[in-house]
Amino acid sequence: MSDVKGYAAQNATTPLAPWNFQRREVGPHDVQFDILYCGVCHSDIHQVRDEWGGSIFPMVPGHEIVGRVTKVGSAVKKFKVGDLAGVGCMVDSCRECESCKKGEEQYCENGNTGTYNSRERETKAPTYGGYSNLIVTDEDFVLRISEKLPLANVAPLLCAGITTYSPLRHWKVGKGHKVGVMGLGGLGHMAVKFAASFGAEVTMLSTSADKEADAKALGAHKFVLTKDKEQVKGVRNYFDFIIDTVSAPHDYNMVQSLLKTNGVQICVGVPPTPMEIIGFSLIGKRRSVAGSMIGGIPETQEMLDYCATHNIVSDVEVIDIRDINGAYDRMMKGDVRYRFVIDMATL
Amino acid sequence: MSDVKGYAAQNATTPLAPWNFQRREVGPHDVQFDILYCGVCHSDIHQVRDEWGGSIFPMVPGHEIVGRVTKVGSAVKKFKVGDLAGVGCMVDSCRECESCKKGEEQYCENGNTGTYNSRERETKAPTYGGYSNLIVTDEDFVLRISEKLPLANVAPLLCAGITTYSPLRHWKVGKGHKVGVMGLGGLGHMAVKFAASFGAEVTMLSTSADKEADAKALGAHKFVLTKDKEQVKGVRNYFDFIIDTVSAPHDYNMVQSLLKTNGVQICVGVPPTPMEIIGFSLIGKRRSVAGSMIGGIPETQEMLDYCATHNIVSDVEVIDIRDINGAYDRMMKGDVRYRFVIDMATL
Repeated sequence: MSDVKGYAAQNATTPLAPWNFQRREVGPHDVQFDILYCGVCHSDIHQVRDEWGGSIFPMVPGHEIVGRVTKVGSAVKKFKVGDLAGVGCMVDSCRECESCKKGEEQYCENGNTGTYNSRERETKAPTYGGYSNLIVTDEDFVLRISEKLPLANVAPLLCAGITTYSPLRHWKVGKGHKVGVMGLGGLGHMAVKFAASFGAEVTMLSTSADKEADAKALGAHKFVLTKDKEQVKGVRNYFDFIIDTVSAPHDYNMVQSLLKTNGVQICVGVPPTPMEIIGFSLIGKRRSVAGSMIGGIPETQEMLDYCATHNIVSDVEVIDIRDINGAYDRMMKGDVRYRFVIDMATL
Repeated sequence: MSDVKGYAAQNATTPLAPWNFQRREVGPHDVQFDILYCGVCHSDIHQVRDEWGGSIFPMVPGHEIVGRVTKVGSAVKKFKVGDLAGVGCMVDSCRECESCKKGEEQYCENGNTGTYNSRERETKAPTYGGYSNLIVTDEDFVLRISEKLPLANVAPLLCAGITTYSPLRHWKVGKGHKVGVMGLGGLGHMAVKFAASFGAEVTMLSTSADKEADAKALGAHKFVLTKDKEQVKGVRNYFDFIIDTVSAPHDYNMVQSLLKTNGVQICVGVPPTPMEIIGFSLIGKRRSVAGSMIGGIPETQEMLDYCATHNIVSDVEVIDIRDINGAYDRMMKGDVRYRFVIDMATL
């Protein structure tokens, strides 16, 4: 067993604080790596506060994990000591169901194993995430990371990146498509970068006028202030796709009204209350509302390789792990451009 | 002008009663036909009771109209006197937008002209539907009807038929697909017939155990009583598509839970209250909720021709027009197998 230092929530109401725990011995198929950076995802907050229910405490959050390999199991083929490596939202899945066989482990019919707030398949031991100094993961769930990109900026690709890359690929978004991106946060800024990179015309849909310049700097071609009725009217029946990254309750029928016939609203955020959708919003133009969750391991690797080739990374603010609770407070106010990343050297 | 006898609602609260009105002279592109049968659609009730708002009174409902041509305009090419003819939910559209050019006039970007409770594009005169003895319609919106099928049973194909045929074709439903049909009414019974005819495995999802035998007689391979939790559990993550024909409020998250990864719930009914959908229902398996509305004129003709070739018609109960208000009452209780059709000879 390895002794590990980390930051954990002991329950749903106390702040994160230092906590020591152990990780398993490196098995034949395992890769162990020193965590150098870990991104801070909004779902970390939902889970440490038990807002989705069923949280397992103590909880070490973090699923945007990058670092350098320190040990590999005897059967490991993809990694050697000294390589860069990454772990995203999953560390295992059943590997036998139709989804797993297709490389869509995120939709594993027997439930994938989350990187934290989940349980190992065999031992049922809780999994602990990336707010810690090392991790041990089956090589099938470890991603190769290019040396070409700034490592702190790569970390958020493991969740925010793949969560937006995957639906854009699934729905074959590209040249000739008009794409709206709702919300300019961790997910939204990656959606803008990817959709623009794939050749689509990208419009940022935001409630904050002061995000226009940033949105355009990220690659958006247009900006629509969704609080301004005239601006909204100008893009009615306009979009082929809207990537909806907003995880607060919002007006789904307004979003639907911006889609042309056959348009798809793709939700990647999960508001705490049900979406309320009027039947005519969908039926009148054969529109749909879809959901999409992260991406499979092969597609995550494809995304990381695409980013290395096209020089795409996340815009981040690197923080000391001692500032994590303050970072959560700032995230709740939308005060981050666009992802906090913990420098694990500060642990 | 032609004098026409019909049944109309004078306002949202009084029963339908005899009412005489006029239709336009037959123009060069018009077809006039004697209405022989007209189906009774649930949306007739919604509109005469002004449940969707904006109803135009007096209102002559009816958009499942079949009859025999009595007069054609000088430029008419597709019809001659004595032919069978049909009119569905639309009698005109802008003919210039992208949707119209694709033959998807139902999604006309400038709004199609409904067969009743709508206004003619140029004169702004109200349109009157098929609870009447004759109709005058531009030939581009008149359908050819085969002499091979029983005419009363053909009428509901013009709405219930195309409304279920179109989404099954759009989503390319066929062999190898598992399709659920929610609700066994006018739309549901046609969805079962078409989905089975296209080669899919069809499961009727119903709240009424006594509909099992009927569902199977119509072509359903399986029956699931949605009030029975064990039966519902048995089809969790099971369907590729669910055609949801229910126009009363219902549990969308239960329906979603029956879809496998990438599954689509296709709504063709419009409940009076918004659908409430939990984000995780969609996101956890990349599911979606879509809407679909009737079908375009070319596809409606294709459907009618398909029905003539494959001997598919609606199961109907033919009524005297004097019984229309009682028929509405019975429809509200779901007491019809599966469509009322008015014999216009009784007018």
